[in-house]
Amino acid sequence: MKNTFGTSITLTLFGESHGAMIGAVLDGLAPGISISEEEIAHFLSLRRPQGAISTARSEKDPFQLVSGVYRGKTTGTPLCILIPNEDARSESYLEKAALARPGHADFTAHEKYHGFEDPRGGGHFSGRITAPLVAAGAILSSALQKKGVRIGTHIASLAGVNDRGFENLESDIAALRQKEFAVLDAEKEKEMTAAILAAKADGDSVGGVLESCVVGMPAGVGEVWFDSVESLLSHAVFSIPAVKGIEFGKGFGFAVMRGSSANDPFCMENGRVRTLTNHNGGINGGITNGMPILFRTVIKPTPTIFREQQTVDYEKKENATLAAKGRHDPCIVHRARVVVDSITALVLADLLTQRFGTDFLGETK
Amino acid sequence: MKNTFGTSITLTLFGESHGAMIGAVLDGLAPGISISEEEIAHFLSLRRPQGAISTARSEKDPFQLVSGVYRGKTTGTPLCILIPNEDARSESYLEKAALARPGHADFTAHEKYHGFEDPRGGGHFSGRITAPLVAAGAILSSALQKKGVRIGTHIASLAGVNDRGFENLESDIAALRQKEFAVLDAEKEKEMTAAILAAKADGDSVGGVLESCVVGMPAGVGEVWFDSVESLLSHAVFSIPAVKGIEFGKGFGFAVMRGSSANDPFCMENGRVRTLTNHNGGINGGITNGMPILFRTVIKPTPTIFREQQTVDYEKKENATLAAKGRHDPCIVHRARVVVDSITALVLADLLTQRFGTDFLGETK
Amino acid sequence: MKNTFGTSITLTLFGESHGAMIGAVLDGLAPGISISEEEIAHFLSLRRPQGAISTARSEKDPFQLVSGVYRGKTTGTPLCILIPNEDARSESYLEKAALARPGHADFTAHEKYHGFEDPRGGGHFSGRITAPLVAAGAILSSALQKKGVRIGTHIASLAGVNDRGFENLESDIAALRQKEFAVLDAEKEKEMTAAILAAKADGDSVGGVLESCVVGMPAGVGEVWFDSVESLLSHAVFSIPAVKGIEFGKGFGFAVMRGSSANDPFCMENGRVRTLTNHNGGINGGITNGMPILFRTVIKPTPTIFREQQTVDYEKKENATLAAKGRHDPCIVHRARVVVDSITALVLADLLTQRFGTDFLGETK
Amino acid sequence: MKNTFGTSITLTLFGESHGAMIGAVLDGLAPGISISEEEIAHFLSLRRPQGAISTARSEKDPFQLVSGVYRGKTTGTPLCILIPNEDARSESYLEKAALARPGHADFTAHEKYHGFEDPRGGGHFSGRITAPLVAAGAILSSALQKKGVRIGTHIASLAGVNDRGFENLESDIAALRQKEFAVLDAEKEKEMTAAILAAKADGDSVGGVLESCVVGMPAGVGEVWFDSVESLLSHAVFSIPAVKGIEFGKGFGFAVMRGSSANDPFCMENGRVRTLTNHNGGINGGITNGMPILFRTVIKPTPTIFREQQTVDYEKKENATLAAKGRHDPCIVHRARVVVDSITALVLADLLTQRFGTDFLGETK
Repeated sequence: MKNTFGTSITLTLFGESHGAMIGAVLDGLAPGISISEEEIAHFLSLRRPQGAISTARSEKDPFQLVSGVYRGKTTGTPLCILIPNEDARSESYLEKAALARPGHADFTAHEKYHGFEDPRGGGHFSGRITAPLVAAGAILSSALQKKGVRIGTHIASLAGVNDRGFENLESDIAALRQKEFAVLDAEKEKEMTAAILAAKADGDSVGGVLESCVVGMPAGVGEVWFDSVESLLSHAVFSIPAVKGIEFGKGFGFAVMRGSSANDPFCMENGRVRTLTNHNGGINGGITNGMPILFRTVIKPTPTIFREQQTVDYEKKENATLAAKGRHDPCIVHRARVVVDSITALVLADLLTQRFGTDFLGETK
Repeated sequence: MKNTFGTSITLTLFGESHGAMIGAVLDGLAPGISISEEEIAHFLSLRRPQGAISTARSEKDPFQLVSGVYRGKTTGTPLCILIPNEDARSESYLEKAALARPGHADFTAHEKYHGFEDPRGGGHFSGRITAPLVAAGAILSSALQKKGVRIGTHIASLAGVNDRGFENLESDIAALRQKEFAVLDAEKEKEMTAAILAAKADGDSVGGVLESCVVGMPAGVGEVWFDSVESLLSHAVFSIPAVKGIEFGKGFGFAVMRGSSANDPFCMENGRVRTLTNHNGGINGGITNGMPILFRTVIKPTPTIFREQQTVDYEKKENATLAAKGRHDPCIVHRARVVVDSITALVLADLLTQRFGTDFLGETK
Repeated sequence: MKNTFGTSITLTLFGESHGAMIGAVLDGLAPGISISEEEIAHFLSLRRPQGAISTARSEKDPFQLVSGVYRGKTTGTPLCILIPNEDARSESYLEKAALARPGHADFTAHEKYHGFEDPRGGGHFSGRITAPLVAAGAILSSALQKKGVRIGTHIASLAGVNDRGFENLESDIAALRQKEFAVLDAEKEKEMTAAILAAKADGDSVGGVLESCVVGMPAGVGEVWFDSVESLLSHAVFSIPAVKGIEFGKGFGFAVMRGSSANDPFCMENGRVRTLTNHNGGINGGITNGMPILFRTVIKPTPTIFREQQTVDYEKKENATLAAKGRHDPCIVHRARVVVDSITALVLADLLTQRFGTDFLGETK
Repeated sequence: MKNTFGTSITLTLFGESHGAMIGAVLDGLAPGISISEEEIAHFLSLRRPQGAISTARSEKDPFQLVSGVYRGKTTGTPLCILIPNEDARSESYLEKAALARPGHADFTAHEKYHGFEDPRGGGHFSGRITAPLVAAGAILSSALQKKGVRIGTHIASLAGVNDRGFENLESDIAALRQKEFAVLDAEKEKEMTAAILAAKADGDSVGGVLESCVVGMPAGVGEVWFDSVESLLSHAVFSIPAVKGIEFGKGFGFAVMRGSSANDPFCMENGRVRTLTNHNGGINGGITNGMPILFRTVIKPTPTIFREQQTVDYEKKENATLAAKGRHDPCIVHRARVVVDSITALVLADLLTQRFGTDFLGETK
């Protein structure tokens, strides 16, 4: 479905960058999930622009939960999150409404919506719409955590600067939770930030790779064909603007491996089956095997740049040039990681609910 | 849905490797699509094991279309494809039913189905289930071709041997259609085949990367959030066994690019908007921009190998060792390409039907 | 899906009777549909409590469209309607939170949501949630009307008082549009109103039957099996609180007819196929035949009554008695008709969009 | 979806009346459900033509389960049922291919499928397609019965002859299971049969009303809005050819009741909440309340009659007359009851699986 995703738990997104409000409806939640407004605010803060390396647009995100919560717990009926838009400056967009920004969806939106689309700030295509998605992710992540499922994402690389990989998964995930700039090796933050600022100084932008890890998923969740865990996670992750690739476990590295090293041997550990390696990223035949789920997502460089670019005026049908004005992110990799965490929480919460029933993520009274 | 995929056009898969029959139901087809049994047979032949580099299992695939076709045309009601299973040898599987084959779904199936799963030949998890999917793909590809949409996939790399990239898309796609072993540079077939045979001689297996291209898709198809073209293609492609990664356009290469080179500048060409480069693989903001769609899929080395591997007996809950017997593929990359073509045809046919209505792919009487 | 309905056009409902806001997200709309706030206000006014025959709760419904509309036209991306709750008095509900109101969903909600449900005013089960549904219906009805599809519903009977049936469909539908109390025979309003007031005087409530008619639907829309027009309309209509039956065309009257009178003979009229009678209500084999769609819906008497009723306290698990206090409707039949019109518009707009593509209901620029 | 219904458990139908085979794919079944071929054969026998009151077409229905069953139990992966078509005589259909049979879907099929539809025996519109649906129903009914959920349907009225109502639900349901002609009052069979034969003698046909009852459904299943139990049951039931109305509990009788008698008072019984009456048919606010589910379905007279009827040739666009030849049912009410039982089993099995998880209906090993 166009702006609704999920089977037993569903998320519906709405809103435009410069409209009155953006929001999301989260349906199918178990009754009795505790809602922490602090946790939602924390997640939103991780998505928010961060100083010089981000856009100067202020996104305070004073969210409101207008339904589905009663006395601090989910009711089991749809939870609607609203976030009003503030500090939107639409002039620069309207001036250039018919100039297709390269790498953006202006032209494709125009082909699809015939000019009725809202051109201000990318309209419904804006990354801003991920704010309510992240608020929903905060709720789902908390509920999953109470069932032992923990999700963490770090910036594996940014503009060619590499972070170290996951080592102790539990403590790495715990540490990431507190970090505004999600690197495991604290030394790398400075290098990555410098790369962002260098691109910004050139009126340019950079991309990178996010690496995600989930611990605590039980074995036996997911489906062999169209609802494989990889299918559902990739479907959801590619909904995030600027994502252009995803790989699970060794991913593209499998292309040069042989089966004898690619396969993960099984062994018994304390009466429980596990694998000695985890090249398959916790998924065999589309179904969780109880090992950590691992995947990597590439985020392309922010399309909006201040350098002059060749383009077209798609109404006049003629060539043109364009250079961005206004406030823009020279990099969104660091902001995207909590979006990946959130959409991952949605997919896994939905899968667990389908598997174990609609009460699974709730508490008992 | 578990074994059904699509919105306006849907495909439902059923069957097990050693059951009586496997098959698929293709629903939502426009009425009046011409059915060519030769085309279906041709697609199935491209998926079939090929001599020494494949399993010795004979898969003749004498398919039957038992519904949805009348006088050589689709009726518009569900088309069911049946393929009987032949030459199945189940003994070796039953002997070792509780030994989890590393890299396979035996253990995860057991966790999900509690031992009721069919263990023979991987049961419903078998790559054999892709045969009816490919038959469906043949029908959809033909229908798309009549509307100017052509799909082609080549083996971009196999065991570290690289094919050349796409150059003249139209003629490359046309050439691939006839090739059993889908390389653009004919010289590479020998090298790749040698690498497969070398692995086979070691009782081992190899993987690779498939690169796909679609020309002729109109601009303005797909959705910005959950039904982005990338979301739907990746969802479908990850349903194919052994796929562990996908990337669109420059994919993971975007991680080290800057926006100024990653963006595709627009220009006018004969009154039509196009891009000068196509790093984004024909998709902006989840929606087609009229340029060729490009993506790459990694296929892991076949998990079944003849070397001894460490594993567990998941019923006795003890460590064990396992070495495959019987007939197995040392590589499935070359067989998988027509599966990727087929699932791509399904996604695009569905998107076009949603966009332009349920008659779009049919003919008029 | 729980609170989302539709395939190509979807509606998602959220909110509780005494929460901050109620609302709906309408997705999949064609771009370029004109939005008339007057029309929305008009539809909402038809649903609003009407004087002595309704609840004294004031429902002004100052709606807000916070997304999906730009310069007075739909953008093609999700349209969110918000209606703040006002004049809610929750005290009487909280006092009696664990007393199951007979005929209501208090007990079933408690069984499903384990006591986490919002008990105030019926929470998410309240008929109040139909207000945003009606706002959505106004938008869809207008769009349908521009394509020649017109929908009208009258009160066929109320507390045993019968209205006349449809005669001239076009003018009857046009007349109904303006009526607060939707009877075709103006004389019946007084009788029906008297019956409502008589029940009210007794602390009791009454029900009735709504009859709906749709003209202008093209032939060939709908599906033979699970998406038959009857299946989809009934699915949607039974979502409306208090609906307990639906029949198409002659409906239950078919039980005593013979085929020779039940069948609708076909004839040519001005080169177009039509039927001489319309006992089948415009639908054959689940698909529209181009004749008017006719169906009747029964609305049970409002469950809330002021007379003492036997019940249980479902927390203490003991018998109890209950008599309503506060403001309640002695009848909702007259208010429900615009809800039926609205949900009918949703189903038909969705079916037409699936059939003819996502631009069908929009305008061209 | 067109020919697929359900959320966690789905049924996909395919086939045409005179094609090679008809069938169904039942997906999402719990692993470990026992399959009784006798039970399936029994259900199919209840649907089969019965002597002089039915068509003379022989329907032996030698079904085959080609997937999803291993060693007599469901595997948890899709179960495909195939039934070959035998004794099909297509000549009379082809002769009159373009004459729209009144009350049938010939004309609407032609409008939708533009003449590509299979005209033989109604093609995919034929009631014959309910045979695999009934086979699926047998499997689901057995599984439900092991969880205490029992379903029964009797012929409440046929051609104006009324059966007695349900009295002792448990024993009535048990008795119905064995009856070919499902009346509770054995005396009525003769009267109803006589009415069918009288219509047959006139070259005409008759209809009737089926009344269904479900005992043992736990409280708290279903959803308040779009997945109300009434919504889902009606959606499914209206998929059955010839159904034109459905009512739950008192249904259309509510129109003349007052709230004080329509409401079902609650009381405690052995520590469990129940209602004193069951006018609401076991459903409040769309959710089961633990009382028996009760609904009534009207089946219109079979459209095929031997009397001459006025119609059109929809290819030549001219008026015509038509009288059926061949073998046809003068009544299908008695054959439809097991179809209603089956589709009810599908809806309830799906709802229970969504509520309690995908293992709910299975057995443990």
